[in-house]
This record gives sequence, structure tokens and C-alpha cells, in this order.
Amino acid sequence: MQALKNTAAVRQHNMQLLLNLIEASGPISRAELSRLSGLSQPTVSGAVEGLACTGLVQVQGQGDSTGGRRPVLLKFNAGAGYGVGVDLGGTSLKLGLTDLGGRVLHRLDEPTPSPGSGHASVIAAIIAAVERLVGEAGVRWADVLGIGVGAPGATDPETGLVKLAPAVGWDRAPVKQLLCERFNLPCRVDNDVNAAALAELIFGRGREFGDFVFVAIGTGIGAGIVIDGKLHRGKHYAAGEVGYLVIDHAWRPESIGGFGCFESMAAAPAIAREALAAIPELADGGPSGEVEALFELARQGHEAAHRVVDEIARYMGAALANLAVTLDPAAIILGGGVSRAGGILVEPIRRKLKELSPVVPEVYVSSLGAEAGMLGAAALAIGAAKERLLNSV
Amino acid sequence: MQALKNTAAVRQHNMQLLLNLIEASGPISRAELSRLSGLSQPTVSGAVEGLACTGLVQVQGQGDSTGGRRPVLLKFNAGAGYGVGVDLGGTSLKLGLTDLGGRVLHRLDEPTPSPGSGHASVIAAIIAAVERLVGEAGVRWADVLGIGVGAPGATDPETGLVKLAPAVGWDRAPVKQLLCERFNLPCRVDNDVNAAALAELIFGRGREFGDFVFVAIGTGIGAGIVIDGKLHRGKHYAAGEVGYLVIDHAWRPESIGGFGCFESMAAAPAIAREALAAIPELADGGPSGEVEALFELARQGHEAAHRVVDEIARYMGAALANLAVTLDPAAIILGGGVSRAGGILVEPIRRKLKELSPVVPEVYVSSLGAEAGMLGAAALAIGAAKERLLNSV
Repeated sequence: MQALKNTAAVRQHNMQLLLNLIEASGPISRAELSRLSGLSQPTVSGAVEGLACTGLVQVQGQGDSTGGRRPVLLKFNAGAGYGVGVDLGGTSLKLGLTDLGGRVLHRLDEPTPSPGSGHASVIAAIIAAVERLVGEAGVRWADVLGIGVGAPGATDPETGLVKLAPAVGWDRAPVKQLLCERFNLPCRVDNDVNAAALAELIFGRGREFGDFVFVAIGTGIGAGIVIDGKLHRGKHYAAGEVGYLVIDHAWRPESIGGFGCFESMAAAPAIAREALAAIPELADGGPSGEVEALFELARQGHEAAHRVVDEIARYMGAALANLAVTLDPAAIILGGGVSRAGGILVEPIRRKLKELSPVVPEVYVSSLGAEAGMLGAAALAIGAAKERLLNSV
Repeated sequence: MQALKNTAAVRQHNMQLLLNLIEASGPISRAELSRLSGLSQPTVSGAVEGLACTGLVQVQGQGDSTGGRRPVLLKFNAGAGYGVGVDLGGTSLKLGLTDLGGRVLHRLDEPTPSPGSGHASVIAAIIAAVERLVGEAGVRWADVLGIGVGAPGATDPETGLVKLAPAVGWDRAPVKQLLCERFNLPCRVDNDVNAAALAELIFGRGREFGDFVFVAIGTGIGAGIVIDGKLHRGKHYAAGEVGYLVIDHAWRPESIGGFGCFESMAAAPAIAREALAAIPELADGGPSGEVEALFELARQGHEAAHRVVDEIARYMGAALANLAVTLDPAAIILGGGVSRAGGILVEPIRRKLKELSPVVPEVYVSSLGAEAGMLGAAALAIGAAKERLLNSV
């Protein structure tokens, strides 16, 4: 429990609350904001005045009269500035310039420098890519209000220190500090799956739920856990490392820091391996090609393909049951490349989950697709930008 | 994010915060409270005045001077009243009358009416037992400030409705409502394992941690999950139903609503079964006798007993690894009858956990023992009492 130190802290709190309401429910009148927030009308008016100064809220027009003067309607101004999101992957940097509502206005895809080159060269590549993105988009630097980075490793969001990111060969990389120094902008750095979970919360179907788990299934498996509308990070920022869920008693770790049980049974390489073992003629196009081909065959009614998909779905159902009985979330949202299989995978997962867990969350595939990471990074940027703006009035 | 509706809500918030600080760090001066809370000295003085009116805070004496007048020290007054905790089990009702600091002043143990007799007769038995407890303790009813009940089932703490409690044969039992009607006292009802987790948070080693999981291992297995100093309950109040964790791919549920995977492999009946299979001469004294005898033999170096304990510890290590990688808690606290085995069980669990999880929380046995449930219920009572008192000034 935090103390609200003074009137200014209460005012910030109220402005943030009203901004959330305007963004979620606008266009909306001051009277309706007062009703929804429980704040008095003068308090609402004062806070709205502050929000208008930031440019984040503007007048939309007038609503229907309920007898007296027609009320002024307020709406969130997504065009008040831009955010830059950087999804740092092992092979590519995916950048997006978005408005403050998360609409992507410009994209950029650059190769990630090889892991051996150290974090300085990767951060230099991020800086160059951000400059190119903003240049190509043709927006003014003064309108860029924040930068967000999703990094493939355990990240301390306070310091922006990426503690360990084997995919890019990092150890204790001061990403936030170096970006702040270069751009002098609000900057946030977080784990990439946490960022994608944030994108679900802000731009995706996670908006409907305060409590959900976003599970990304690709080359590896990780999750972002949202509780009461906030990311739960854990003591070592390792909450959601669900690739390590133990779902089979016979499984033994190959090495410390190697693949975990769940991901060694159900991530893309395992799916490709099982698919090849059952259907040798799939051997073309590399692991992701094999995974896609497997799901396509299963969709066409291929029996062996169906068996493999059902087996994979059983592993996933067990892991999701473990999340369901631990957290009892309202929903589990699947992301990552493997989730694009859609219904052919999700239906048997749902069946397995019902069999194993006394409580069954909704399970569905993210609507954000391959952009979830970049959008999550943009959400970090937008969050940082809003915080700066609210603190400025 | 909740709005603080008015000055009264801010005042309540601040009083609660200062009460927590005084309870955790008292005797303490107003100046120190101001420093720790970030609240201004006039705000602290106003709130402390309110707290003094409730009787929850009193003057302890004077501290050392740091130059000027010697500061008045404030302390929590655990003697301001009493709470009644009721741990409702399948076979017995365990009651305790405690002071507001959780010190048990009187205990009572009564048989639980048989499951077939319906919830009305069980609630009547609770009411009679509470009356007997207060009578025997010789305290005035006016000094009993709250009642708490821990129930063996999914419980909605808002309504106090116990939704499903097979151990006592309940379905949608309005426990809170009936107790409130009878005693006209603040009353809280929660799941028994959640209540025990709360006892850990308030009276046990959980105080050191804001984030921990309390895992009760007995006839069944369940957990209470504490995040940011608060119980996480989940969408259907089923968070922490970790008896259903799937830790073996070969496992199949026997029936819907039956035992879960983890508990069917590692709760007391499973341990007794494995122990008997390996060491037939253990067959005496019933399941809990067999479990205790197994651990005693293992402690004495009995090889077969050791093997069984190690196997059980591997199951538990796998389940705890699943909690560790999902939540990354600071600690996992073990409770329930089986946990009393102590080091002979906990050491191999720790080893297994280190092997399976990239993050390793502290693992230890609850210091509250068999009283955790009753103390947790008392903690519910005390929480309800404090809330009523703070709202009265």
C-alpha cells in the first residue's frame, strides 16, 4: 500500500484514471466521467483541464441534451504525438512508429547484428534503425514522445537493464540508459513477451480482461502474466518463464539454462521433429515450414498429421491447465508463430484443458499476430510518453 | 486503478497505511512515521489521532531525544479487542480466540457434523462453538470485534458464499450471512488454504516477503498465492488449486472433480500407498501413521524409505518448479500435515527444484504448523475488525 503523498500525487492519480476512462469509453462527458470514476464534478473538471493541457484529451463536439445544455464530449487524442516500438529479436529488429492509440504509421525491419558482436553494436543498430524509421516516416522529432524496446531476456523494467538475453548474446546490457542518453526521450525496456502481453492488454482482446496470461509459442515458449491489469514480473523478473513448466515426470533437463520441459515437448523445433518422425515426406522448408505443413495436412484430414497435432495439443493443454489452476485467469491468449495454426490446434487444446482443470479460462489466438512484440514495445513507449506528459502539468 | 473518491477515502487509506507501519515497526514516533510513509507531519498527526480513537494505537512512552523534546512513541494495541477464528475441517472445527496481534488466548476443538447433515447444521455447530469459546475464555462480547472462517472450498470473500466444499458436503452455503445475522459482528469467510496463507503473511515468515506461495500438503493439496502483499484469488476464486497441477504426461483424471494429478501423486494417501508398497511392514496406524513412520524410517537411514521419500520429493519439486517459473515468488512456504516431515523432505525438494527451474525461491516449512488454518481465520476476523474500527472514526 502506497501513501498518496500530497495533493499533486492525488491529482496525478485522478488524471491517469480519467485518461484511461476517456480512452476506453470516449467520447464522453464530464458528468459521465464523474459517474464512472466516483470523483466529484469539480475534481473531474480540474483534472480534465490538466489533460487538455497535455494534448492527450480534446473536445469532440457536443452530445445529446438530457434536458439542459448539450454536454461537451471529450475524447482521447491519439494524434498528440508518436511512439517508437522496437522488437529486438535474435535475427531481426522490428520497428514501428505508432500514434498514441497504437495505430502503426510506419514500419521498419532490420537484421540484428550477430550475437558475438556484443551489446554495444546491437544498441548502435537500434539507434540507427530508430533514426531511419523516424526519418522515413517524415515526422518531426519533437512529436516523437517515447521509445519502447522489447528484449528477448529477463529485464529489469526499472533500470532497463537486460540481465540475460542468450538470443542476442547479452549479459547486463544497459539498453535504457544508452537510448535515453542518445535520444533524451522517455524510454522503457522490458522482456519481449511481457511487451506482447502489454500489447494484448492495451490494443488486443486482453482489454476485456483484467487477468489473463499471454503465452507465446515459437522457437521457445514464454508467457506474460497480467493480474489486475498489471504485468506480474516476479522476484527475479522471471515470472512467466513457462517454457520450463514440468508436464512430464519422465523428462530430464539436458543442461542448466537449456530448453525447459514444456518447450522441449511443444515448441516449434519439437513440433517439427514429431512431424518429421510421423510424416517423413514433410522434410522441406526447414522447421517453420514443417510446422506449417503439418497443420495444413491436419486441416485437410491427414490422419498421421492429426495424431501429431493432437499429441502436441495434449502437451499444451497440460501446460495451460497448470496456468489455469495456479492463477485462475479469465483468459489465456496464445501468440507466437505456432499459434497461427488457429482452430486445428486450439480446439484440441480446449478439450484437453477441460479434461484436466476444474476451472477453464477462455483460450484464443491473439489478434495481433507477428506484430504483437513490436506493438508491445510501442505500448511501452506510449506508456512512458503519457507518464511524462501527465507529470508535466 | 481505483479513484480515491474524497478526502474521507484518502484519510482511510492513510490511517490503514500508518496502522500497518506502527504494527510492523512500532514503537515509533510521528516524525519517523512521516519519514517512512512520505506523508506530511500534519497528515500523520491527524491520522494518528483517528487511530488513537479506535483504540488500535496507543502511546508507549517517550523515545530518545535528538536534540529537542523527546518524541512520543506510538505502538499497536493488540489488546484493544479480540478476534475469533474458525478453521472448518472435514472432521473437526478448530476455534481460537486471539488478541488483535494474533496471540491465541483460548482454543476449542469440536467435531464437524457429518457432511450429510447439510450446511445449516454445520453453521449451527459453528455458532454454538463460537458461543462456547467466548464463554470459556471469559471475555466480554463487547470486546469481540470480528469473526473469521476458513472453509474447505472455493469461497467468494465478498459475499462469504462457500460455493463448493465437498469435504463438508456444501454447495453455495451462505456462511457469512448467517454468522452476521447471529452475532452482528464484522465477519469474513475465505477458503481455508487462503486463510492459512494470510496467517503466514501476517503472523508467519511470509511477513518478510510480499510475494510467496503457501502450499498445504495433506489429504489433498492446495495453495494460497500472495502477490504484492495480497491474496490472488482468480476469476472463479480457484487460484491456487495446485493439487490439479499436471506434472506427469501419463496421468489421466479418474473423474471430474476427483483428485488432481499432483495430489494423486504426492498427497498423504499417495505417500502412504507408495510407502506400503515399498515397505509392507509399515501397515499399521492408518495413512497418517504410515506417512509419519515412512519419514521416521528415512531419517534413520532406511534405504527403501529413502527411495520413496526421494520419489515423492521429485513430484513435489516438479510442482514447485511449476509455481516458481509461473510466478517467480520470493518464497514457497510448505504447510499441512505432510510438511511436518521437515528437512528429510525439504532438502530433496530443494535439490529437485534447482535442477528443474532457472529461478529458485526460498523453500521452507511453515512455523505455524497445524494452527495455520485457525490463525488465518483469526487474521480474517482481525482484518474485518480493523476495517470496521477505521471506518468508525
